Amino acid sequence: MTGSKPTLAIIGGTGNLGTGLARRWLGGGYEVIIGSRTAEKARQVADTLIVPEGGRKAVGDANFQAANLAEIIVLTVPYGWANAILDDIKPAVHGKIVVDTTVPLMLPKVARVQLPPEGSAAVAAQKRLGDGARVVSAFHNVAAQKLQSGVEVDCDVLVFGDSPDDREVVIALAEAAGLRGIHGGPLDNSAAAEALTSVLIGINRKYGVEGAGIRITGIA
Amino acid sequence: MTGSKPTLAIIGGTGNLGTGLARRWLGGGYEVIIGSRTAEKARQVADTLIVPEGGRKAVGDANFQAANLAEIIVLTVPYGWANAILDDIKPAVHGKIVVDTTVPLMLPKVARVQLPPEGSAAVAAQKRLGDGARVVSAFHNVAAQKLQSGVEVDCDVLVFGDSPDDREVVIALAEAAGLRGIHGGPLDNSAAAEALTSVLIGINRKYGVEGAGIRITGIA
Repeated sequence: MTGSKPTLAIIGGTGNLGTGLARRWLGGGYEVIIGSRTAEKARQVADTLIVPEGGRKAVGDANFQAANLAEIIVLTVPYGWANAILDDIKPAVHGKIVVDTTVPLMLPKVARVQLPPEGSAAVAAQKRLGDGARVVSAFHNVAAQKLQSGVEVDCDVLVFGDSPDDREVVIALAEAAGLRGIHGGPLDNSAAAEALTSVLIGINRKYGVEGAGIRITGIA
Repeated sequence: MTGSKPTLAIIGGTGNLGTGLARRWLGGGYEVIIGSRTAEKARQVADTLIVPEGGRKAVGDANFQAANLAEIIVLTVPYGWANAILDDIKPAVHGKIVVDTTVPLMLPKVARVQLPPEGSAAVAAQKRLGDGARVVSAFHNVAAQKLQSGVEVDCDVLVFGDSPDDREVVIALAEAAGLRGIHGGPLDNSAAAEALTSVLIGINRKYGVEGAGIRITGIA
């Protein structure tokens, strides 16, 4: 833990993606607050996260409190709950980077691309939170169950946001989680990675695999 | 050349993507008809394509005639011209596989994802051609200039279409061009690869490279 590392709130952080990222960021020396609808549930899950050597125990709190205490807010909530949770944390995100991992999966056809009218879940979140929030979207294509372990994940993280500097911050978070982060361009471009998740779910089914991912070629 | 290989028309086939695919398919023993707005232009370009050993010379014809003579039709036309060319060839495509490579790049911001109201260029093409055409979309993410040479292209081809059998046919065409083709699911999912092309253009600029591509991981 160094003073220069921002405190991270993982909103809706009790699921596979939230706890998977939490484990890796704790291992990277970050302070992590797990957020959930109730503080009690958040604390229960935070208590299950193994503290890495030299690391700090995760804490838990209700989503709004977690967002309020953190410098960077990471959203790992199911698409169907996103709007209610965005409204809940909105007063706590002004001026902060909000990392949106939301993929617009529409039940029951989660392997069919169904982007929202705004073009992407990330653009919809930015509109809902207002100009005060600095929404960056990322981590759409990473298989959550692979993050739970310490294994290398064979998947790049495309990072989208209208501020290249904010994208750099999130690329550093990807790297702290053991993943390669790549500039994907403006927030509008989030549609590409969000759509790709449905394609990857279909590939998992069609090819009988788990955790198909993507790599960008030709840049290294 | 074997009798079992379908004759291919490459509509709008005088550009980099069209001639790049043509070279590779000629090398794979396919009969190729280059289509252009005028038969003369198409023949001029067909004459420039090197005939591979044991292969057959490409021929050229006007777009409609090329489509009419072929068993499989491949569209390699700029987005702005797509509707006019679809209307031109529509009477010639009934019952045939139409491989749409169109990416909805909107000048001047080609590195910004701007999907059409139909959700994707491929779905728009299917609507324009009507139910008689079997639209499959593919080859969105491959750098055209890399196809011109015989080098291995480090990029997968995501193939979208509502018929898995038709997708298989196009996956075989990708393989004949030296590329790995992958089932990407229904035509609606074409949005993912179309959007990704704008992301890749942005990556080329941001990282100072040419021909960034994608690989699907975890399936082989």
